[in-house]
Amino acid sequence: MLKNTSPNAAILIIGNEILSGRTKDLNSSYLAQKLLSIGISVCEIRVVSDKKAEIIAALNTLRERYDYVFTSGGIGPTHDDITSDCVAEAFGVSLCINDEAKQILMSYYAKENTELNQARLRMARIPTGAFLIENPISKAPGFQISNVFVLAGVPKIFQAMVEKILQKLTAEKPIISRTVTKNKPEGEIAEKLAKIASRFPEVSIGSYPFETSGIIGTNLVVTHRNENTILKVVSQLSEI
Amino acid sequence: MLKNTSPNAAILIIGNEILSGRTKDLNSSYLAQKLLSIGISVCEIRVVSDKKAEIIAALNTLRERYDYVFTSGGIGPTHDDITSDCVAEAFGVSLCINDEAKQILMSYYAKENTELNQARLRMARIPTGAFLIENPISKAPGFQISNVFVLAGVPKIFQAMVEKILQKLTAEKPIISRTVTKNKPEGEIAEKLAKIASRFPEVSIGSYPFETSGIIGTNLVVTHRNENTILKVVSQLSEI
Repeated sequence: MLKNTSPNAAILIIGNEILSGRTKDLNSSYLAQKLLSIGISVCEIRVVSDKKAEIIAALNTLRERYDYVFTSGGIGPTHDDITSDCVAEAFGVSLCINDEAKQILMSYYAKENTELNQARLRMARIPTGAFLIENPISKAPGFQISNVFVLAGVPKIFQAMVEKILQKLTAEKPIISRTVTKNKPEGEIAEKLAKIASRFPEVSIGSYPFETSGIIGTNLVVTHRNENTILKVVSQLSEI
Repeated sequence: MLKNTSPNAAILIIGNEILSGRTKDLNSSYLAQKLLSIGISVCEIRVVSDKKAEIIAALNTLRERYDYVFTSGGIGPTHDDITSDCVAEAFGVSLCINDEAKQILMSYYAKENTELNQARLRMARIPTGAFLIENPISKAPGFQISNVFVLAGVPKIFQAMVEKILQKLTAEKPIISRTVTKNKPEGEIAEKLAKIASRFPEVSIGSYPFETSGIIGTNLVVTHRNENTILKVVSQLSEI
């Protein structure tokens, strides 16, 4: 396990389409890798349905427990987009049309020759006290309130918003990882592996079996913040 | 939203490799679709790290809250495979070598001309009172204890175990869904959509934007247990 000295985070994916298996969640693995590269470890991912009580309960639990919470989904113009309402309620603040967000939408839809109707205007409702997160694709912004970052669900927009917030997040020394590949099944190396793991309790050593063209093998992934420590572990693993 | 008359379920994915984004979670969408086809709705998915306290806390919360809990990962032979230990502790039962599981492993490894060493024997440790779940691929079994089903993390093995348990799970009338595709952006149809949704509060109508070769459109997914109700909603959506 990694020692808990680096900032940690949770990802909250909101949407029935993920729970039904109809849509694959591409956002959490994308974000987890990006966060890890700047030294923030994702410690929990939750997927909840488009139900107000579920979203608020998960939000309140996660924002108490982790340094950062990133949500994905539910900030579009339709009736099932209720994430902003839930965030406002979780923080006990009002949800009003935000002037800056409205301006962004007005100029975008004017340029697109499209009406800014009531449904689209919903996307300018931002909890009081939140900062907007730029959406370079379809303009309707995400927002940050306290340690919670509210992002779109559509992967292309989600990723663009992630780029924007990564620049802002305070980065520590990044967590790095090295993979040692063994052409042996897990069961063959497990005992020696356990001994090495017990020598380095502060280092995360994951063991992941694979099978490629008939060869059964194991990837050993060593993760830590200190390159020298990683090299020591890798050297011992190489001798198994 | 679906009315809560059907059995519901949660999926608990265990493993640092998913939280780091290194490995994509393929299991939860696979299982969610399979469960939905026999009338069980997945209401929550959680991904937690390979930490005992985290796994036990999530297990205890989810098994209280949902009819079924399905776990994935952490039942292999290495030091980071601690799911069985956690399940036993969550249920307050002992974790011993299970004779049936040991026999399965002994005959498998004998046939493979491979030593059943201490590490591999770990996979025969099963919480007292649990029933084995057959693993047709690599033989080390999963298990069911009360409403919790403990499955392997490797997708091919996970899927084979899912096939085994689906046969056992009591199936209700399946939940069905129909998709209506509109070649219009969400914002264009949101107001009419909200009106239709309010007429059918018992039906789940999800709105999912897409963009294919320059066309921006919206998939409307209608989900319910009654085909006639679905047809009514689909007919109204078609008229938008």
